[in-house]
Amino acid sequence: MSAPAPPRLSIDADRLVGRIQDLGRIGRGDDGKLTRLAASEADKAGRDQFVAWLRAAGLDVRCDRVGNLFGVWREPENADGAAILVGSHIDSVIDAGIYDGCYGVLAGLEAIETLRASGFKPTRPVAVAAFTNEEGVRFAPDMLGSLTYVGGLAVEDGLTATATDGAALGAELERIGYAGSEAPGFLRPCAYVELHIEQGPVLDREGLAIGAVEGVQGISWRRVTIEGVANHAGTTPMTMRRDAGLAAARVIAHLRDHVAGSNAPSVATVGSIAFEPNAINVIPSRARLTVDLRDPDERRLQEMEAALDGFLEKLAAAEGVSIAVERLARFAPVAFDSNIVELIEGAAERRGLTSKRMTSGAGHDAQMLARICPTAMIFVPSVGGISHNPKEFTLAAHLVAGANVLLDVVTRLAG
Amino acid sequence: MSAPAPPRLSIDADRLVGRIQDLGRIGRGDDGKLTRLAASEADKAGRDQFVAWLRAAGLDVRCDRVGNLFGVWREPENADGAAILVGSHIDSVIDAGIYDGCYGVLAGLEAIETLRASGFKPTRPVAVAAFTNEEGVRFAPDMLGSLTYVGGLAVEDGLTATATDGAALGAELERIGYAGSEAPGFLRPCAYVELHIEQGPVLDREGLAIGAVEGVQGISWRRVTIEGVANHAGTTPMTMRRDAGLAAARVIAHLRDHVAGSNAPSVATVGSIAFEPNAINVIPSRARLTVDLRDPDERRLQEMEAALDGFLEKLAAAEGVSIAVERLARFAPVAFDSNIVELIEGAAERRGLTSKRMTSGAGHDAQMLARICPTAMIFVPSVGGISHNPKEFTLAAHLVAGANVLLDVVTRLAG
Repeated sequence: MSAPAPPRLSIDADRLVGRIQDLGRIGRGDDGKLTRLAASEADKAGRDQFVAWLRAAGLDVRCDRVGNLFGVWREPENADGAAILVGSHIDSVIDAGIYDGCYGVLAGLEAIETLRASGFKPTRPVAVAAFTNEEGVRFAPDMLGSLTYVGGLAVEDGLTATATDGAALGAELERIGYAGSEAPGFLRPCAYVELHIEQGPVLDREGLAIGAVEGVQGISWRRVTIEGVANHAGTTPMTMRRDAGLAAARVIAHLRDHVAGSNAPSVATVGSIAFEPNAINVIPSRARLTVDLRDPDERRLQEMEAALDGFLEKLAAAEGVSIAVERLARFAPVAFDSNIVELIEGAAERRGLTSKRMTSGAGHDAQMLARICPTAMIFVPSVGGISHNPKEFTLAAHLVAGANVLLDVVTRLAG
Repeated sequence: MSAPAPPRLSIDADRLVGRIQDLGRIGRGDDGKLTRLAASEADKAGRDQFVAWLRAAGLDVRCDRVGNLFGVWREPENADGAAILVGSHIDSVIDAGIYDGCYGVLAGLEAIETLRASGFKPTRPVAVAAFTNEEGVRFAPDMLGSLTYVGGLAVEDGLTATATDGAALGAELERIGYAGSEAPGFLRPCAYVELHIEQGPVLDREGLAIGAVEGVQGISWRRVTIEGVANHAGTTPMTMRRDAGLAAARVIAHLRDHVAGSNAPSVATVGSIAFEPNAINVIPSRARLTVDLRDPDERRLQEMEAALDGFLEKLAAAEGVSIAVERLARFAPVAFDSNIVELIEGAAERRGLTSKRMTSGAGHDAQMLARICPTAMIFVPSVGGISHNPKEFTLAAHLVAGANVLLDVVTRLAG
């Protein structure tokens, strides 16, 4: 068996890495921290830079009513076709890293520029998108821009989404000059491919270059409130206690023992907790905790939810506490398009890159686009799995490899 | 066997219950809540009322430098003797009940007034004390007044104790007119008896009238800080987690399983907890929790501490977290005087009251006085074990019964 012939085209590695660095310098506070929340002044500055690059690349810049930004490569001979869409988002969390979202947007631009410069003739338009408010830090829900784009949220509801600081998204987009005139969904996609850092440890730990992402896990978020009886820590015998804090600890331990003991890729997390009155010498009368359950398989996710409900019922009886469960969020797993996933695997193989099929643990704009067109994602390693953190890091070689896989996939889809 | 002859004397039930109610009306905010923190304006008002009752009873009112207040019954023929001291405290927690502390002080005054009115001739002085800052809510340490009184804290250190609101105790006592001139310890006690509500559920649950308190539990307070690694709740496989929150839950569950499974009267409580970053979708990087261990037996308390240390060591290795333990407070158990405990038991029996020997789970001024003189405590039931709470309640019949037992014990000690 001979080595695969190297593909003809490759992206400009220095330009890609340079732009990621440049965009990562925009939106830093006096303390040097990067915070580019959706529709903020910092977001405006980031958008302005992105638009300048789109214009310099000769792309048609469009903005829709909820601020989703597009750089469209449309030729007279393919102008009527549905577009190959690539992209991600350039808004960030608070004290962010520079790769999350931006990498996919800038690699998408890079792929288009490389194809154009090569003289490639696409059979349909190719466009790069930066969707509004993917992170959901300033406005709820997260992925607001792509959700609106696919018709999952009415435009008016998107525009009246209220920031944590009280401002409405519509007014903020007007203020920063990115309240566009296009109707969300104006650019009809026939495929969507999103390149992203993994934001998890799997590729890095396993020494792999490319993740061919088959779908997004289902998510179940709940708040559990446990009511016991506050009593003096010194005078209340152990047998007479109704300790809400102890019951909360039993929930956390149960989730770990139940989920980590299975062979499934299920995950369960208790990230947030509070006791009342939260005093060293008072038995907690109330404990509130959040439960985050995820699984790529809807049936297993439902089983996890049912197992938790059953455990809480027994726990309430055993500890003499009452337990209330509030549903905070619930998303069914999303399956991506198997043809695009195969294209990603094939492209990685032809470039001599190791890869594996995987499921995204985090939410992405791609899960919204999957509602209206064949969609998949490409992951590259995150060192240590760290994300949403200034320590977020991906090796330049991995950034370039991922962008070249994206280039190859776009070439195939648009060829 | 014939029924015991009823004792000749009894306290004035209406006067005692009326005064408890009257004092409980002093220090209420606009919201009706009772908060009489040490050396506050509310404390001044409570002290003024107490002093008025002491004066009306013909007692010699004395105040020492840290604000401990005394009503002394001294006759020319016993003026040189060491005093029989009774009492407790009249400062309160925030949103308090009316019985904690005040009951022991007012029942002490009641016993003295009853004895005086009866023509009883004590062989030594008898005095009632209200010690400063027993609760420790406004100034640290708690039991500051009695600790200083017995020489466990230098007067200057007591006076410079700084309130949670920034004020120094000495300046606050000056301000409210209760910076006395007596040196703490000026009144030499030959015995101390403190009557108090149980603040726990045992007497109420068992239907008993009187607790003959043999000592105070030892207390070990620690803060446990667990450092793990923050990571994305969706992208981090269960096997790759270093979850500080899960480790905290294991500590809570271990304490319950370890302590509740023993036959000892040991108690263990985790009353306070915090996760960082405390977000629904982030594995906790840090968990901080407090551990409150108590036992009447010093050896068992040390064994509990050692068992916790051993568990934390194994837990750190098992979960890949680091664990630091800070010692916040440590008090060895205090044993009261067996002769006075027997006097209490005998007095209860002669009045036809059910009683049991018990250990105090809470700290009291009596544990400080025990350092310098034979000491014991009398408990009466707290309905539901509730204390430090406006729902704190003791039946008038139990208040009167306890005060009569105190009267009988003082009569024996001063006879």
